[in-house]
Amino acid sequence: MPTCLDGSLVTRSIPASQRAAASPNGFRSAVAPPLLAGVVCSDMAVRHYTLDVSLSTAVESASIVPGLLSIFHEQELTETIHDTNGQGYLATFVGKNGRFVILRVHSHGLVTIDLQCYEEDNAAQLDNLLNALEKKLKVLLNGNIARIKKLPALTRGAKVDRYWPTADGRLMEYDIDQVVYEEDSEYQNIKILHSQQYGNILVLDGDVNLAESDLAYTQAITGSGKENYAGKEVLILGGGDGGILAELVKQKPKMITMVEIDQKVIDGCKMHMRKTCGNILDNLRGDCYQILIQDCVPLLKKYVQEGRTFDYVINDLTAIPISTAPEEDSTWEFLRLILDLSIRVLHPKGKYFTQGNSVNLTEALRLYEEQLAKLSCPVDFRKEVVCVPSYLEQWVFYTAWKK
Amino acid sequence: MPTCLDGSLVTRSIPASQRAAASPNGFRSAVAPPLLAGVVCSDMAVRHYTLDVSLSTAVESASIVPGLLSIFHEQELTETIHDTNGQGYLATFVGKNGRFVILRVHSHGLVTIDLQCYEEDNAAQLDNLLNALEKKLKVLLNGNIARIKKLPALTRGAKVDRYWPTADGRLMEYDIDQVVYEEDSEYQNIKILHSQQYGNILVLDGDVNLAESDLAYTQAITGSGKENYAGKEVLILGGGDGGILAELVKQKPKMITMVEIDQKVIDGCKMHMRKTCGNILDNLRGDCYQILIQDCVPLLKKYVQEGRTFDYVINDLTAIPISTAPEEDSTWEFLRLILDLSIRVLHPKGKYFTQGNSVNLTEALRLYEEQLAKLSCPVDFRKEVVCVPSYLEQWVFYTAWKK
Repeated sequence: MPTCLDGSLVTRSIPASQRAAASPNGFRSAVAPPLLAGVVCSDMAVRHYTLDVSLSTAVESASIVPGLLSIFHEQELTETIHDTNGQGYLATFVGKNGRFVILRVHSHGLVTIDLQCYEEDNAAQLDNLLNALEKKLKVLLNGNIARIKKLPALTRGAKVDRYWPTADGRLMEYDIDQVVYEEDSEYQNIKILHSQQYGNILVLDGDVNLAESDLAYTQAITGSGKENYAGKEVLILGGGDGGILAELVKQKPKMITMVEIDQKVIDGCKMHMRKTCGNILDNLRGDCYQILIQDCVPLLKKYVQEGRTFDYVINDLTAIPISTAPEEDSTWEFLRLILDLSIRVLHPKGKYFTQGNSVNLTEALRLYEEQLAKLSCPVDFRKEVVCVPSYLEQWVFYTAWKK
Repeated sequence: MPTCLDGSLVTRSIPASQRAAASPNGFRSAVAPPLLAGVVCSDMAVRHYTLDVSLSTAVESASIVPGLLSIFHEQELTETIHDTNGQGYLATFVGKNGRFVILRVHSHGLVTIDLQCYEEDNAAQLDNLLNALEKKLKVLLNGNIARIKKLPALTRGAKVDRYWPTADGRLMEYDIDQVVYEEDSEYQNIKILHSQQYGNILVLDGDVNLAESDLAYTQAITGSGKENYAGKEVLILGGGDGGILAELVKQKPKMITMVEIDQKVIDGCKMHMRKTCGNILDNLRGDCYQILIQDCVPLLKKYVQEGRTFDYVINDLTAIPISTAPEEDSTWEFLRLILDLSIRVLHPKGKYFTQGNSVNLTEALRLYEEQLAKLSCPVDFRKEVVCVPSYLEQWVFYTAWKK
């Protein structure tokens, strides 16, 4: 999982195609998937409940703790009181079957309770315990409570992982119930996960790429329904899920060339993302399209040399890197190389479409726009903010064209 | 906060109007807001990091723990080893400035680490600690790691609360940075929260109702752009954010009557949801609309008695209750009363629009459809699944009409 704790690159929908070419440049080196030795050996996940009470004014722990202890003792929990060096009250309680509770009365006016247990534990008993604690706290702190917050429990170490943070690093719990496909290709870790509401979701190296619910993504990256592709020459960079290809062939273009580096993405999507790709990935070649399994960079260079142009170039490869650290220069350079080549194969009246990034990553978006100003062919651009259902954050899409 | 732990009712967009009428029936009694005595007294929130390593095969704690202890000791953390009654290894570590770490080696093949600290603590030091632990675990468990998961840290007890679960009870972290309005009316707790990407968000009794980004909601509940409101009589039940009213007046209807019970919702939205309501709430009466501040039930009864009908009735009141427990019968009865009255004031060729619920709450949706089959005027209906940006879950909308 790309994480935010260590300031590493976090990207969404990183280039199928770009990955290979990128590795030598050190791109995404910080987000290599963890050592995947195999499947999780047990499904006995830990459920982690939290109950937090924010106070209007700070209180002495002595006014709360004795009233709560009887509840813990009733549950046959063994208590340890810790020395906090003056940082409030902290006690831990160990119970049967792996139950573990932490009670902290923070000296600035916050009471936090953690309850960890195994998923197979008696949920009703644990609810009762939490409810009893909440009820007692309401009595003990009557008139002094600003907020009571009981979050949905975290499920930790489950066989099927439901937590896929947004590109801007926020915690999101998906309704994922099954891993339907998982492969490590030579370029990336590929997962297809089943969501109750989004259908199957393609996840590449931990980034949510596209779900079967996400026609909005395909529409945005093909011009939001305002373009006419009939009779046109189209180049798709990446796009291994087949969504763009499947939508555009309906419009009878002259020829669509799609360049996807990772056969295993196509293999997975062909089987499990059929609401997105239909049957378009069943054959690498059709009346008005061809799919090339290769790195797009040498191909773009060849097209430039040949003077070949396209009416539309759709870059479905690259999220804008989030890191803006100087050592990531090569990332931006690589990104600009792709951009530059793409614009060079664009017909003078053609359009270049690409996704950008989370609307919240304003600095990354600004840097991307800086790259657009540095291309060998000058371009103008516009951007649009789109809601892609499975992303759980607003996403920026760009359109660029030659000046 | 409506929670799911205790099986209480969790609803979205509960009736401005219905709330008042509902209380006597016990509706939503389970989701009364907590005792709100005032604002959180300090912004020294707790940051709670988790690092979980799922193993392919279970290991003895003795093969991991000694290798990790040196890292904890370097950080001057004071260790306590707990007796777990055979449920794996559990140690807690108390450090300076309120730092607290938990290390568990669960006997079925899972290592969990929790790190709690104050928000003002040195983030780089904590990152280093977590990274050191992760790195060491990778060495110690080389070849046996199925997944490493480091979630975005939970922020607990912060002045501005960013966690607003979905209707189906999943944890979601919003990019909320400010409370711009908060009032307790006689009916509910009203908050308007600022989100970087969604604009201001109206939250009623802990339920995300509507954000300024959510034109998709207004479009869905007015017929997805397929209706012509020009010259029509329209009744809006609830709708205090003004979104529906602001959109429909643009179409020059004959008259829109909007019935909202809670003046304080209107007061807040008029000031802080202007991307949604424009200036429509500045006056309770305009060329083609009137806003009545009252309970909709007596009004509907009066309209029925008078034989008055509307071309469109838009129920922006009620999420379908989630609880399906027998004791909640009164909820469904109340809901059916509103439905029944609404259909009775509907012109024979008119349309009734309403929101339903989270698409994942299939049982609640089924029960709602059961109510539709029990009305005094038989109706047909269809439903549509819509992505409302700020909801972070797919939402069902209904259209009903007289058979």
